[in-house]
Amino acid sequence: MKATACRKTHFNAAHRLMNPAWDDNRNKEIFGVCSNPNYHGHNYDLIIKVTGDIDPATGYVMDMKLLKELTDKHVIQKFDHKNLNLDVDEFRQLNPTAENIAMIIWNILRKEIDHKFSLSVVLYETERNFVEYTGK
Amino acid sequence: MKATACRKTHFNAAHRLMNPAWDDNRNKEIFGVCSNPNYHGHNYDLIIKVTGDIDPATGYVMDMKLLKELTDKHVIQKFDHKNLNLDVDEFRQLNPTAENIAMIIWNILRKEIDHKFSLSVVLYETERNFVEYTGK
Amino acid sequence: MKATACRKTHFNAAHRLMNPAWDDNRNKEIFGVCSNPNYHGHNYDLIIKVTGDIDPATGYVMDMKLLKELTDKHVIQKFDHKNLNLDVDEFRQLNPTAENIAMIIWNILRKEIDHKFSLSVVLYETERNFVEYTGK
Amino acid sequence: MKATACRKTHFNAAHRLMNPAWDDNRNKEIFGVCSNPNYHGHNYDLIIKVTGDIDPATGYVMDMKLLKELTDKHVIQKFDHKNLNLDVDEFRQLNPTAENIAMIIWNILRKEIDHKFSLSVVLYETERNFVEYTGK
Amino acid sequence: MKATACRKTHFNAAHRLMNPAWDDNRNKEIFGVCSNPNYHGHNYDLIIKVTGDIDPATGYVMDMKLLKELTDKHVIQKFDHKNLNLDVDEFRQLNPTAENIAMIIWNILRKEIDHKFSLSVVLYETERNFVEYTGK
Amino acid sequence: MKATACRKTHFNAAHRLMNPAWDDNRNKEIFGVCSNPNYHGHNYDLIIKVTGDIDPATGYVMDMKLLKELTDKHVIQKFDHKNLNLDVDEFRQLNPTAENIAMIIWNILRKEIDHKFSLSVVLYETERNFVEYTGK
Repeated sequence: MKATACRKTHFNAAHRLMNPAWDDNRNKEIFGVCSNPNYHGHNYDLIIKVTGDIDPATGYVMDMKLLKELTDKHVIQKFDHKNLNLDVDEFRQLNPTAENIAMIIWNILRKEIDHKFSLSVVLYETERNFVEYTGK
Repeated sequence: MKATACRKTHFNAAHRLMNPAWDDNRNKEIFGVCSNPNYHGHNYDLIIKVTGDIDPATGYVMDMKLLKELTDKHVIQKFDHKNLNLDVDEFRQLNPTAENIAMIIWNILRKEIDHKFSLSVVLYETERNFVEYTGK
Repeated sequence: MKATACRKTHFNAAHRLMNPAWDDNRNKEIFGVCSNPNYHGHNYDLIIKVTGDIDPATGYVMDMKLLKELTDKHVIQKFDHKNLNLDVDEFRQLNPTAENIAMIIWNILRKEIDHKFSLSVVLYETERNFVEYTGK
Repeated sequence: MKATACRKTHFNAAHRLMNPAWDDNRNKEIFGVCSNPNYHGHNYDLIIKVTGDIDPATGYVMDMKLLKELTDKHVIQKFDHKNLNLDVDEFRQLNPTAENIAMIIWNILRKEIDHKFSLSVVLYETERNFVEYTGK
Repeated sequence: MKATACRKTHFNAAHRLMNPAWDDNRNKEIFGVCSNPNYHGHNYDLIIKVTGDIDPATGYVMDMKLLKELTDKHVIQKFDHKNLNLDVDEFRQLNPTAENIAMIIWNILRKEIDHKFSLSVVLYETERNFVEYTGK
Repeated sequence: MKATACRKTHFNAAHRLMNPAWDDNRNKEIFGVCSNPNYHGHNYDLIIKVTGDIDPATGYVMDMKLLKELTDKHVIQKFDHKNLNLDVDEFRQLNPTAENIAMIIWNILRKEIDHKFSLSVVLYETERNFVEYTGK
């Protein structure tokens, strides 16, 4: 008996979309206002989804408190109230698009969560733009 | 031409997380504040998803009014404004975690909905914690 | 490295549920108040989901601005502030249920979006009733 | 000890904005796409707010079940799944803007609710456009 | 230059509506399913509103972190994951309706917040039922 | 017959809370993570509320399209996808707290909107923290 357990959390961050191999004009042409050199920002909503068997002793797929603690420690403390381009090592050479942020979060959490569980990350950049990354 | 038709509804209930095979200390250690002996409660949001062919005569996968009636009759009347541990037979020996509640609802509705449709149940315990159960 | 990029938008429209092969009594019997001869209406929320590889140059699956422009041009301008039965050719002989609207939108956008991407359409008729169409 | 008790409900309706004293060109000039002759529609969210003393016997300002029944009987049955211009007498000569709909609902409910309570109506035409009418 | 600063938080609790001076039949007649003897529960959303001058040194009406800490310490720790009737002293003789819960929270916080600020409490029992208490 | 017409819109921006008269240590002590020198950011939701008589010719307090255009031209173009501290003149010497941003927006729009209308600005920095400014 498998189920998917989901935990929603959030972080607030500044970012600028840019390919460091391109000059400012090319970045502005491709990324428009999202490439403002002084940055802009978002309230990111993040949903972590873990799929696995329901443990008959607890009735949990995975203890949500543990999932929350892992996400807080490895993701939220690293990203919240930060400038993603300047303050987060993973984005020094990687464009902090929603797709790439979701991929980085998935890579971070994949190391922390038992491989008997499958893992999916949904990231809302705004309520209108969001992405899902499943590692496939 | 297949589609998934989804109906969202809700119920308000009290519950206490506990494994009846454990004593209060063990339950408190594992389930924390969720094991308060006097119960706490939630506004549960429930989404029933039915996947199947679009009927060319009606344009429906399944009449949402019928899906609503089945859910009201077999789930909402049983769970709404109840104490899940004390008032709902299925949880007398089963811990009413979100995972187990979703499984019980799926089992109840699976008997009521034609097997030409596949069925999925999404249960929000809070807007931050939710689960999906698909019977797989 | 695949991801799913999602764009949410909306349109406001009137419609009447009816099978043109049936008389008014039969339509009322099957569709109830949704078959009011003078129409009723909804704020439709629409989510377009595109799955594909993350482009290493941009960090995008697909430029959301382009996805927004395609959706605005081919769907929103056609459906927004319209009577679906009277003003949208596709529904002259097809019942504008949520399922059929989602299918028509999928068919429209499938022609506009590169086939290297898979496509899914989620349509909320209300926050309680919604459908997903994936072309499968 | 006064409090304000609020009840949220909803109805789905078609409408067309128009001043019957103007011709179609003038209506189109002033109301734009909202004056589409074949109508469009909305999911209206409605909040009824009642302010008064907390009754020491019940702990209620007013029984929400009664407020819900009054709203269902006098407003929702009249407006839901209707064409406001054609099916609701009050709008045969009155433009069904959000402001006017809120005023009509206030007028209807003011007759049904004890004058020891003050009354306010909030109407969401969309999540982006909403109005409040307080009878002042 | 005055502004109103608002902080939203939440707690999950069980309760039963009842007037302890009435017998079970009378309580059931007045409060219906809300008087289930085994309790039911809610995810309560709570908004604390503080109105006062904007401090020119900080740009704040009041530091939201402080408002959050006061609310957590004096309200959330007392109410969250509790049975309001059994675990919270204030409701041993007072019916835990939304109106009375809002009044109790207002009384608690009024003692903790400088009287140069005016105070309002909005409590959502569900997204459909909510109350405001301002101490007037 | 007065009503309040409300228009919700949004902008995404980076900011840093700081009093320019204080050094970094003092700013960090008072503003915590909100004073990160490299900025963070938010999806701001903005509601503009205009109160006045309902115009009998249009049924409007004020044409929402005009209110949207004024807000887009004078507020959104200035704030959206910007760094409030670096890119918006008004915040070069003024701390961009939610309170101060709401006050600046009110001051901007007060000049554009006829004084027969009263004006209120609600600004959500996150769904948990929001302010209202009415010019009183």
